[in-house]
Amino acid sequence: MRTLFNAEMSELADDLIAMARHVEGAITDASTAILSSDVELAQSVIAKDAKLDELESLVDERCVLLIAQQQPVGLDLRTIISSLRISASLERMGDLAQHIAEAARRAYPESAIPDSHREIVTGMAQAAKEAAAETVRLLETRDLNVAAAIVSDDDNLDQLHARAYKAIVDGEYQGSPRETLDLALLARYFERFGDHAVGVSRRIVYLVTGDLSDTDAKI
Amino acid sequence: MRTLFNAEMSELADDLIAMARHVEGAITDASTAILSSDVELAQSVIAKDAKLDELESLVDERCVLLIAQQQPVGLDLRTIISSLRISASLERMGDLAQHIAEAARRAYPESAIPDSHREIVTGMAQAAKEAAAETVRLLETRDLNVAAAIVSDDDNLDQLHARAYKAIVDGEYQGSPRETLDLALLARYFERFGDHAVGVSRRIVYLVTGDLSDTDAKI
Repeated sequence: MRTLFNAEMSELADDLIAMARHVEGAITDASTAILSSDVELAQSVIAKDAKLDELESLVDERCVLLIAQQQPVGLDLRTIISSLRISASLERMGDLAQHIAEAARRAYPESAIPDSHREIVTGMAQAAKEAAAETVRLLETRDLNVAAAIVSDDDNLDQLHARAYKAIVDGEYQGSPRETLDLALLARYFERFGDHAVGVSRRIVYLVTGDLSDTDAKI
Repeated sequence: MRTLFNAEMSELADDLIAMARHVEGAITDASTAILSSDVELAQSVIAKDAKLDELESLVDERCVLLIAQQQPVGLDLRTIISSLRISASLERMGDLAQHIAEAARRAYPESAIPDSHREIVTGMAQAAKEAAAETVRLLETRDLNVAAAIVSDDDNLDQLHARAYKAIVDGEYQGSPRETLDLALLARYFERFGDHAVGVSRRIVYLVTGDLSDTDAKI
C-alpha cells in the first residue's frame, strides 16, 4: 500500500515538473514572439495553452483521488494540498505567457514595444525565463538556493515593472495610446509571472523547511 | 463524530461567507474611492486587505485539519477542496479591490479616470459590486440563479473592458500617458475581479450539480 502511495506521489511530482516545463517553453516562446514580432510563434504559444489546462485538471483529479483513497496525513497531506496550489500557479503562469503572445499577435505586423521600452521588456523577458527555468529545477531538486534565485528574479521583475511605468509617466516618452496600453499590460503580465513563480517557490520551501511565515506564500 | 464534522463544515461555509462580505465591502469602497477621488476611503480599503489575507489563512488551515482529522471522502472532500480554491479566489478579489484603491491614491488629488472613460468605469464598478454581492448570496443560498447572474455580470465586465481599451486606441481619445496607464490597469483589475467571481460560482455550481464541464472553473 505504502509502495503504491509513494509511486503515486512520485507521479504527482512528475506531473508538476511537466507543467513547469510547459510554462518554461511558453514564456520563452512568448518572449521571443513579443520581442521579434513573430506572429507564428505567438500563435503556437496560444494554441498550446489548452495542454497546460489539461495537465492542471489531471493534477487536481490525482490530488483529490490520492486524498480520498489513501487518507494521507502530515507531510504527505500538505504535499498534496501544496501540489494543488502549485498547479494553479503554473496554470496561471501559462495564461500570462499566452497573454504576452496575444499582445504580439494583436500588434503584428507592428511591434508591441516602442523603442523607449525595448531594453526594459528585454530585461523582463530574461528574468521571467530564468524564473521559469528555476521553477523547473526547484521542483526537480528542492534545492533552496534555487528558491532564493527565483525570489531574486522576482525582485528584478518588480524593479523593471516600476521602471516601465515610470518611463511612461515621466519625461521624454512619446508612445501612442495603443503602445501605452500594450506596455502597461505587458509589464503587468511579466510582473505577475514572477509573483506566481515566487508563490511556487514558497510552497516548496514550506514543504522542505516547514516555514510558511510569509503570507505572500498563499498562492 | 459526524455531528462535530457537520459543525466544522458549517463553520467553514461561514468563513467563506465572511470573506465574501469583506470582498463586497472592499470593492464597494474601492469603486467609490476611484470614482470620487476619495483618498481616505482608498486608504481604508488598502489597510483592511490584511484582514482578508488572515481569513484566507484560517480557512486554509481549517481545510487541512478537517481533511487530516476527519478523512472525508466524496462530496465532503470535494467541498473542502473547493473551499480552498474559493478562499484563494476571494483573497485575489480583495487584492484587486486593493489595487483599484491604490490607483485612486496614486492619482490623488487628480482623478485616475479621464472624462472619456467615466461612464465605462462607472459601469465596471457597478457590475463588480453586483458580482460581489451575488457571490455573498450564492455562498449563503447555493441558488443556481445567483450563479447565472454572476456569469452575466462577468459578461458585462468583459464587454466594458473591451470598450475601455477600444476607446483608448480608437478615435478621439485625448488621455495623457499616465491616464492611459491607469485606465489600462483599472479595466484589467475590474475584468479579473469578474473572472474570479465566475470561478467561485462555477465551484459552487459543481458542488450542487456535479457539473464542472468548463475548464475555466479551475480557479
